[in-house]
Amino acid sequence: MTDVVLASNDAPTPATRSVTARALSILGVFSMERPSMTLSEISRATGLPVATVYRLAGELEEGRFLDRDEDGRYSLGLYLWEMGMLTPVHGRLREIAMPFLLNLQYTCRETVQLAVIDGVDAIYIEKLSMVESAPVQSRIGARIPLHATGVGKALLAFSDPTFVDTVLGMPLTRYTDDTTTSRHVLAKHLAQVVEDGFARSRQEYLIGSTSIAAPVLVNGVVKASIGIVNYEDTDLDEWAPALLHASKALGTRLEELRWGTKEEKK
Amino acid sequence: MTDVVLASNDAPTPATRSVTARALSILGVFSMERPSMTLSEISRATGLPVATVYRLAGELEEGRFLDRDEDGRYSLGLYLWEMGMLTPVHGRLREIAMPFLLNLQYTCRETVQLAVIDGVDAIYIEKLSMVESAPVQSRIGARIPLHATGVGKALLAFSDPTFVDTVLGMPLTRYTDDTTTSRHVLAKHLAQVVEDGFARSRQEYLIGSTSIAAPVLVNGVVKASIGIVNYEDTDLDEWAPALLHASKALGTRLEELRWGTKEEKK
Repeated sequence: MTDVVLASNDAPTPATRSVTARALSILGVFSMERPSMTLSEISRATGLPVATVYRLAGELEEGRFLDRDEDGRYSLGLYLWEMGMLTPVHGRLREIAMPFLLNLQYTCRETVQLAVIDGVDAIYIEKLSMVESAPVQSRIGARIPLHATGVGKALLAFSDPTFVDTVLGMPLTRYTDDTTTSRHVLAKHLAQVVEDGFARSRQEYLIGSTSIAAPVLVNGVVKASIGIVNYEDTDLDEWAPALLHASKALGTRLEELRWGTKEEKK
Repeated sequence: MTDVVLASNDAPTPATRSVTARALSILGVFSMERPSMTLSEISRATGLPVATVYRLAGELEEGRFLDRDEDGRYSLGLYLWEMGMLTPVHGRLREIAMPFLLNLQYTCRETVQLAVIDGVDAIYIEKLSMVESAPVQSRIGARIPLHATGVGKALLAFSDPTFVDTVLGMPLTRYTDDTTTSRHVLAKHLAQVVEDGFARSRQEYLIGSTSIAAPVLVNGVVKASIGIVNYEDTDLDEWAPALLHASKALGTRLEELRWGTKEEKK
């Protein structure tokens, strides 16, 4: 168990954190790997005394930020999910995008993904796969590199030049033999993406994964990208017109709704 | 910092309790109607002084619980969305259910919904509509009555008898002329739902809305329901076999994954 404590303890020393920060740090210890935890597990993971965890977890449970099951195990609560649905970029965008993603999925019957930029990564905010779809390794909420994925390159190619320079100035991690790690070559690829209107990626991040992706532009600014991914080595170019149609239609819809502005329509 | 050394059976000091509660109350003021707010708007909505809001919002922003745009307006942050995706009932269930919902949507081409019980309400956790679907009035996260909707009746009919008695003992709100408000008649309806294996609802909650819905049973316990809804007065019974197939397949999948238990597989 000690390794878990070490792994999760990258925060400032517990005693120097404010009460609020300590309460919030309790929420931060839950993960895909550990979706539910006992008081003593939370205590070990946060470095906070059990008594403190007991009191703060009680407050968080009262506020529906934590749920507790019959065995006394805590998990993240409904209220967090409800608030997550209200986050403009992720919750709201996902909801507005869904019909467009669904129609695209109908057309191509491949896995369809929606991604946005967060920091210098892309992050998946939706993934539509059917029961019979090839197993998809992307998880909603997962971070993926901008330079080595279809959705990432579609986002990057249409980004502000200053941002592109920043990303090109960072080390371009090699994930497979086909990852572009040369800044110069990547810049040429991105110019081609702008010319084509969509990006292609063939096992640049995961072996065997092929994708195409197009940017979602809102008043000329890239806000998201939509990708079609397959885990056989299929040429996906035949779906490019449907992809471009979906990404343009979503951009237009977001403009109509004035999405992300204070005048946003519901 | 004295709270750190409190014994677990000590009452929390009012001062520290209120710090956490005040920070959490800031997150609670955002809504669909007000997805972004200025400091002074938050101050008015919470009743906290601007200086307090300023300090707590800063901590919440640092923890990525709040985002702030160029105009200084706050909105709920990415981290809340990420944590919401980790909530067992809502985030995880939704992700596991998606392929089954999608296949059902493919078959019937009507709007497909996923709902769970929360308290004495049903709550929508997913909704799949196509671009050309009839406008759907349900919103993800919205609460709906158990006694007057398809997904609600499917959840209620298969619930623990004690819980059913509780709901039947509450006032059954009338929403339309077709809402069942008699406890006795509703009990007979629920028995019919169990016999048929699925629920029907025809404008019992919203005029013009028709739905069928089936329970998702996990080891014999109802955990969710899947509904098909239409806003024309269409007979949806032709989709009942596909609906039952989807709800059974999802239940089996959740059993396989040991969903919601500490042994859950990822």
